[in-house]
Amino acid sequence: MRMRYKPWAEDYLKAHTDIVDIDGEHAKQLSQWFDQQQPLYIEIGSGRGQFITTIAAQHPEINFIAIEREKNVMVNILRDVIDQELTNLKLICNDAAELTDYFEPHEVDRIFLNFSDPWPKRRHTKRRLTYHTFLAIYKEILKEDGEIHFKTDNRGLFAYSLESMSQFGMYFTKINLNLHDEDDEDNIETEYERKFADKGSRIYRMEARFHQS
Amino acid sequence: MRMRYKPWAEDYLKAHTDIVDIDGEHAKQLSQWFDQQQPLYIEIGSGRGQFITTIAAQHPEINFIAIEREKNVMVNILRDVIDQELTNLKLICNDAAELTDYFEPHEVDRIFLNFSDPWPKRRHTKRRLTYHTFLAIYKEILKEDGEIHFKTDNRGLFAYSLESMSQFGMYFTKINLNLHDEDDEDNIETEYERKFADKGSRIYRMEARFHQS
Repeated sequence: MRMRYKPWAEDYLKAHTDIVDIDGEHAKQLSQWFDQQQPLYIEIGSGRGQFITTIAAQHPEINFIAIEREKNVMVNILRDVIDQELTNLKLICNDAAELTDYFEPHEVDRIFLNFSDPWPKRRHTKRRLTYHTFLAIYKEILKEDGEIHFKTDNRGLFAYSLESMSQFGMYFTKINLNLHDEDDEDNIETEYERKFADKGSRIYRMEARFHQS
Repeated sequence: MRMRYKPWAEDYLKAHTDIVDIDGEHAKQLSQWFDQQQPLYIEIGSGRGQFITTIAAQHPEINFIAIEREKNVMVNILRDVIDQELTNLKLICNDAAELTDYFEPHEVDRIFLNFSDPWPKRRHTKRRLTYHTFLAIYKEILKEDGEIHFKTDNRGLFAYSLESMSQFGMYFTKINLNLHDEDDEDNIETEYERKFADKGSRIYRMEARFHQS
């Protein structure tokens, strides 16, 4: 993602620790952070947050957490949360690799991965958010019947993710190989999705779960 | 597949029981059918047989069996086997549902499914060759580390198969979501594949194995 450096970003985030966690201050106490005790959906790599702010506004009966490590884009989400007075959306500013520091085991009902960085070079495989080290983290924090909802325009990342997830012992309950050519009225577009779909790129989507051993 | 009724087909097949099994006469004695004891690859739904005759000619070190229930198209494969003097390719004229009558448990090294009938209507799901009842048959006859190689131009069938196979406890070692846009010099085209690729359709391909429990 292209982004501008914003020298005021850190101060702005730190002034709103009721909404955004930047130093782990809400780690392992996430349920106390929300007004309501209700299901918890998280998005890893939220970017500017179009998806997560839209779905959070549509579903007040669910708690949401946006995880994004870039402070310069996290400020966009924070601004929207304040503007829209979204009490069911909180933000964590950290890397996906650190998630087990924040969540209790099996605390999360659903994980969204939307348009993750494809890291196309083979030597960067470990950085893909569906590499097995990340899947192990998701398995730890997801409820046993919890789902991962994955969406991308990148054909290589989608194929890789189907391989990696199935090899890890996951299965797919729903796969779309050309999302915008099929009926899915519930689809919430991200900022990337609109851009790529307008260019004629296919959008790939899947829902996945862990086999219980 | 469109095909012409050929009144002579049955007689022609029956005159060559050294090459084609039409009444189960080689059932459970398949290894004695071949000149050489070597790995066994089978194709289910061979149609006119362009794929299986090509790969059999290229790989004399492997035994092949083409399974096709339509006698009117099986005669095309038989003619090619005779013309090309292929001693490593035999034919079984029967339905995929009957395969356990022919093969010993774990006798097969690889199964090819090429451009299987997509049966797109939901009420016909059970007829798709990746429906779980068929997967159970494949698991029984495949070696434990055996592979299924699956290729189709039908997006819906491919997505369904990824779901069905992963739910059954299979995993994918290789997935191509646009075969002809990626490098695969080993690809052997079927008669359908050329036709669909020429029309600009994507060809989908995967290799899959069973998780060992």
